[in-house]
Amino acid sequence: MKDTKVNAAILIIGNEILSGRTQDTNTSTLATWLNSIGVKVKEVRVIPDIEKTIVDTLNVLRKENDYVFTTGGIGPTHDDITAESVSKAFGLKYEIHKEGYKILESYYKPGEFNEGRQKMIWMPENAELILNPTSGAPGFSVENVFCLPGVPSIMKSMLGGITNKIVGGEPILSKTISLKTVESEIANSLTKVQDNNKDVEIGSYPFFHAGKLGVSIVLRSENQSKIDECNLQILKFVNEKKIEVVER
Amino acid sequence: MKDTKVNAAILIIGNEILSGRTQDTNTSTLATWLNSIGVKVKEVRVIPDIEKTIVDTLNVLRKENDYVFTTGGIGPTHDDITAESVSKAFGLKYEIHKEGYKILESYYKPGEFNEGRQKMIWMPENAELILNPTSGAPGFSVENVFCLPGVPSIMKSMLGGITNKIVGGEPILSKTISLKTVESEIANSLTKVQDNNKDVEIGSYPFFHAGKLGVSIVLRSENQSKIDECNLQILKFVNEKKIEVVER
Repeated sequence: MKDTKVNAAILIIGNEILSGRTQDTNTSTLATWLNSIGVKVKEVRVIPDIEKTIVDTLNVLRKENDYVFTTGGIGPTHDDITAESVSKAFGLKYEIHKEGYKILESYYKPGEFNEGRQKMIWMPENAELILNPTSGAPGFSVENVFCLPGVPSIMKSMLGGITNKIVGGEPILSKTISLKTVESEIANSLTKVQDNNKDVEIGSYPFFHAGKLGVSIVLRSENQSKIDECNLQILKFVNEKKIEVVER
Repeated sequence: MKDTKVNAAILIIGNEILSGRTQDTNTSTLATWLNSIGVKVKEVRVIPDIEKTIVDTLNVLRKENDYVFTTGGIGPTHDDITAESVSKAFGLKYEIHKEGYKILESYYKPGEFNEGRQKMIWMPENAELILNPTSGAPGFSVENVFCLPGVPSIMKSMLGGITNKIVGGEPILSKTISLKTVESEIANSLTKVQDNNKDVEIGSYPFFHAGKLGVSIVLRSENQSKIDECNLQILKFVNEKKIEVVER
């Protein structure tokens, strides 16, 4: 089955995620936003702040996906090497971005636009800026690669500015049915429903929290009527097995 | 510089992470545990429940790393395909694990060890079990690949049982210095300290939360005295710049 969807990869750049010190939340923020504009996330990679690793990984992902979104490594310190690495991946000069320079020059008070801050507007030549409504320093894009900062609140605030640059497919719709049961009680029935509904992706996820135990079944498709039909078939066996439908 | 550390990759298997519906927390749990036993996480990948993708990705990661830890896809439902995919990656038969069968047969009440539950003890031939103190169904390992469940509380409860199977290097030590400043104020000084301390990995991470704004500098090395020396050099410029050291 050829996958005709518009695909993206997310590339999280940062030793702090790999050490376990920082919990990544940018993946779910980006994935939720991408789904809403019809882009399916095919793969996520988390890699360290090592230039060769960034260059090599980016050169794989940007060829295999319609879009790549990177987070992290675009600040002013020595461990922020994303912009220079992206330049090398594309074989582009790494230089001061004139428009970015003007933005930061007027953002800071006179005399405060120091060398550290100026590093943040060194980018691949002819990069397009991604404006930052939170803290001034812009991200950038080159072809199908969009480079965003790692701080979650800042990253999130910049997505509105690039939505119109992403051409997605049909939005991916979903429905969740949560049941007071365990997976093994419904596994066979669910397999039959999946076999009968090839165009709906059916996921089954046990949950254990807030004193509740159960299974969430998630139906995903671009076609609402196919989700509805699949939902009916699930509710039929749920009813026959006298399983309770619950709020998650 | 040859990296002599013991390395691992984490492979998160599951559409629910890629859709943004579920926030992965297994990466930070695994990374923290691995650090504590002297294993450095070199890469994390999140991939969908697609057999070819699992097989191909696993065959890359298991050759490039000392260890691979997978989470997700070992339950009883149709979308749980990790065990069968791992069998294919290693060219091993996919069959009922006799010891696992006995464990689950005695775990469930008579008559409750149904077909759905039996799926959970289909594994690659000669797999070693990873015992599950929380919910019965074991994980397994084949050579350097350790397959764990996706539910965070269950996954975490199984790590104690495999610690003695992992041969790590020196534990990676760290020290965090949090400052009331912005990155651009310290970037140049920090670069000099990094240049003078090649054996310490220095990370700089801005934070904005709970009403506080600042930068955490994280020093990581296997050598405590090198961390201490690096710490002194940082405190020297922090003092000269009259920057306040804060609790994070």
